[in-house]
Amino acid sequence: MITQDALKDLFNPKISKWRTSITKVEANRLVTRGHVQEDLIGNISFPAMINLLLKGDLPTEIEEKMLSAVLVSFCDHGVTPPSTQSARLIASAGSSLNACLAGGILAFGENHAGAIEKSMKMLQEGVEIAQTYNRPLNKVALELMSEFLNRGLKIPGFGHRYHDEDPRAPRILELAKKYGCFGEHSQLIVSLEKLLEEEKRIKMNIDGANAAVLSDLGFDWRVGCGMFIIGRIPGILAHVHEERTHEEPFRKMFPEEEFYQLRNETNFL
Amino acid sequence: MITQDALKDLFNPKISKWRTSITKVEANRLVTRGHVQEDLIGNISFPAMINLLLKGDLPTEIEEKMLSAVLVSFCDHGVTPPSTQSARLIASAGSSLNACLAGGILAFGENHAGAIEKSMKMLQEGVEIAQTYNRPLNKVALELMSEFLNRGLKIPGFGHRYHDEDPRAPRILELAKKYGCFGEHSQLIVSLEKLLEEEKRIKMNIDGANAAVLSDLGFDWRVGCGMFIIGRIPGILAHVHEERTHEEPFRKMFPEEEFYQLRNETNFL
Amino acid sequence: MITQDALKDLFNPKISKWRTSITKVEANRLVTRGHVQEDLIGNISFPAMINLLLKGDLPTEIEEKMLSAVLVSFCDHGVTPPSTQSARLIASAGSSLNACLAGGILAFGENHAGAIEKSMKMLQEGVEIAQTYNRPLNKVALELMSEFLNRGLKIPGFGHRYHDEDPRAPRILELAKKYGCFGEHSQLIVSLEKLLEEEKRIKMNIDGANAAVLSDLGFDWRVGCGMFIIGRIPGILAHVHEERTHEEPFRKMFPEEEFYQLRNETNFL
Amino acid sequence: MITQDALKDLFNPKISKWRTSITKVEANRLVTRGHVQEDLIGNISFPAMINLLLKGDLPTEIEEKMLSAVLVSFCDHGVTPPSTQSARLIASAGSSLNACLAGGILAFGENHAGAIEKSMKMLQEGVEIAQTYNRPLNKVALELMSEFLNRGLKIPGFGHRYHDEDPRAPRILELAKKYGCFGEHSQLIVSLEKLLEEEKRIKMNIDGANAAVLSDLGFDWRVGCGMFIIGRIPGILAHVHEERTHEEPFRKMFPEEEFYQLRNETNFL
Repeated sequence: MITQDALKDLFNPKISKWRTSITKVEANRLVTRGHVQEDLIGNISFPAMINLLLKGDLPTEIEEKMLSAVLVSFCDHGVTPPSTQSARLIASAGSSLNACLAGGILAFGENHAGAIEKSMKMLQEGVEIAQTYNRPLNKVALELMSEFLNRGLKIPGFGHRYHDEDPRAPRILELAKKYGCFGEHSQLIVSLEKLLEEEKRIKMNIDGANAAVLSDLGFDWRVGCGMFIIGRIPGILAHVHEERTHEEPFRKMFPEEEFYQLRNETNFL
Repeated sequence: MITQDALKDLFNPKISKWRTSITKVEANRLVTRGHVQEDLIGNISFPAMINLLLKGDLPTEIEEKMLSAVLVSFCDHGVTPPSTQSARLIASAGSSLNACLAGGILAFGENHAGAIEKSMKMLQEGVEIAQTYNRPLNKVALELMSEFLNRGLKIPGFGHRYHDEDPRAPRILELAKKYGCFGEHSQLIVSLEKLLEEEKRIKMNIDGANAAVLSDLGFDWRVGCGMFIIGRIPGILAHVHEERTHEEPFRKMFPEEEFYQLRNETNFL
Repeated sequence: MITQDALKDLFNPKISKWRTSITKVEANRLVTRGHVQEDLIGNISFPAMINLLLKGDLPTEIEEKMLSAVLVSFCDHGVTPPSTQSARLIASAGSSLNACLAGGILAFGENHAGAIEKSMKMLQEGVEIAQTYNRPLNKVALELMSEFLNRGLKIPGFGHRYHDEDPRAPRILELAKKYGCFGEHSQLIVSLEKLLEEEKRIKMNIDGANAAVLSDLGFDWRVGCGMFIIGRIPGILAHVHEERTHEEPFRKMFPEEEFYQLRNETNFL
Repeated sequence: MITQDALKDLFNPKISKWRTSITKVEANRLVTRGHVQEDLIGNISFPAMINLLLKGDLPTEIEEKMLSAVLVSFCDHGVTPPSTQSARLIASAGSSLNACLAGGILAFGENHAGAIEKSMKMLQEGVEIAQTYNRPLNKVALELMSEFLNRGLKIPGFGHRYHDEDPRAPRILELAKKYGCFGEHSQLIVSLEKLLEEEKRIKMNIDGANAAVLSDLGFDWRVGCGMFIIGRIPGILAHVHEERTHEEPFRKMFPEEEFYQLRNETNFL
């Protein structure tokens, strides 16, 4: 017979403790990245807090302005993105506010906000290669372009479904120059843009510009999609609120003709 | 036989069109609440953009400072909240970043971020009653307290699971006074706090203070939980990134003793 | 000075233990509701397992057949429901499979799957009233109808957005009679249907029929929306798979005319 | 000046139509994979419906029994999985039922339900190689093992965090033999198991067994994680219901000692 003790030996899961270096919680005292929260509230801006949470320290004045501009640039793209549409559909179905926002965020997939993450990864790896092998950035740009195009891949951060010239991208790079935040990642993406304009007449989009600037600000590419979400969630909230207050419940989006069109189709799975 | 035409009459769903007043999307041109986005980027702060998206206009300098302080105050509460824990668990299971953030947001339920929404609703209704019936706010406070306590309900915006004195709440109200944002909703909650301290020795928490100030700033109570989410999502992102970069995958949180303890229990569903 | 000990007294959160009566997990042994899992696999049907998980015991043969029919009846409603549309949109954005399914489930809000929960609650309360006060079910039906209509509310479980006669509802009730599962909740909803057909020419829908039968089978109304989700999730999976394998990525659903129509609109928030 | 017409040319998004081959929706008539739904309800089992939705046709009697056993085997693993814990945490926070279930599903990431998808992919590719190049399955097994181990990867479908011998896996394969469903994918995984037991004393887990059998039943590996979710969602619903009805709201899971332990830690991001 297997005794309790025998089982205990066989079956001894290691417990993961909760621990964090972000905020210490004590009675009546909250310390975030070494700062008592009462000292932060009213003394630093919201973008500075975002910087503190994600990078562990407060930004310089210049970094703070740049980050603020990036966050503003993510704001909204009307009712066109899948994230906005799914959030509004979920609102229309009568779900709770947090369900609507979560549903919107779930649509930030590889084809939507994925580009900024991929673009940051590409630029951070590119700059690392340039630094490690002491290679000029425009040469790295050429290699990156070849590699993507040879593998039949779109270069992340270029082209836009609704615009042939994304008006937000040049604005962000103009500010990066003005604030002195135009570093190697920005240089690399500008080199890439020159090549791509010549080769394929494709221009940089806002994801590309923000990917470069966030990289120059020192953000890890693995939080790139999260930065997009931070910047876009207020817009999605505005859409959910608009849907709830100005539209009929249970949105129907099924054009009549298509019902009948299906009749003669065979299963195609 | 039912003809196609007969069916068409029976079956004619009304199609909901997508429309919005938030952002107009045109080729190479994005206009949010009447402002071309290139003019907003670099010229307004992120809290000002949040104000523009949600209320339709730009804030005054004072309103912007106040809103910024409120957003900073939501930042983080360590690993204690269910939202942070579920986001970290989902990260630990190897899900995508957007799934982690969405999972965190799903935990902003009635017992978590629900308080700020309920508190805003209570304060906005209370102030409306005071204005409509020309009744002093401290009298309305007394009525509200009685109503909640008689119905056995907790008053939203008071008390805290981990603190007997939430250090963030007085800081927010101090700033509201400093910036001249201390309006009727703030007065009402301070009246309520006086009564509750005397009666039950319970103090205002950060949800209560923010509910009052956001109401004085003109935010609809129905976006209250959303404002909490906007302010907290950077913190959740920081936790998800920390979990992914500093913890072993597949967090186990099942203390050994409890396995065995279950043995002699009967079903209790 | 506040000492560590003083803090410890102030700050002593009660820890919630994980415990459950559903499945005991031991080394190499899983016991669900008292049954070793190897004995269940291959010996009971999937609906029987669902019954065991949710009600704590195995169903009779009749109950199993009835539950199976109910689950089949939830299967799919084409591309019309918001849940299916949001799942497909999220798939189209390139999100992971679990994100797509979660996003679909988030659309089961009050206006979508909410009806079955509300209908079960109404029927369970109605039958309890009939039993407690020894009142005939058709009288209770009349009272329920009056109460809902007087308060301007739709009666949950009646009417359908796409059908004037939901073909699934009579089929489910026919089976309930055949299997001897047609209990008091089914009688109550049939009484309600008679009244509503006379009064307003509205017929029972599948949510109403399933609400009655699930109540007669002894399911708590608080799992009603969950039963709908169990029955519908395979259909949503089929849609997500179809979207991924047969449609272009990044679905665009924004008719051109509407872009321009927006131009002259003023903000309406 | 840019005229409306000029813009129209520049800006002409292609609209994606909603279309599906799964269910035709007509007035008072629902046809799923060619079958009127009233004919399916009460005449086919729930697993048969799942087969119909995902594969487009009805299963044989044997396939239906096998699929049913697989679905039952996914049922529940107590409070140990991250999916169950996040669903219960979200329930504890007072979120809506659909938010709880969605939050559970979001935890089916790469380290959790990801194994079944990866295992199905590996087996389906392995069998294809064997067929294309006329190579014996045990040779393919050896190649697969080498490839995974050389690349430092775990072989999906083997080993278990809580069990050294997963009791469900041999039961599923025993049934596959009994029902005559033990095809090439099952043979391949059994070959793999022999090698892994000798080499590393690691045994097949339930994900491996189900991956083989689902592949032999003809399911695409891209729906593998979805099949797990279909089988597990009833268990998660049972946990959410138990949490809501038997536990205090706002679960606290933060052991006191760990609060203080944090004090002397430095930021580790």
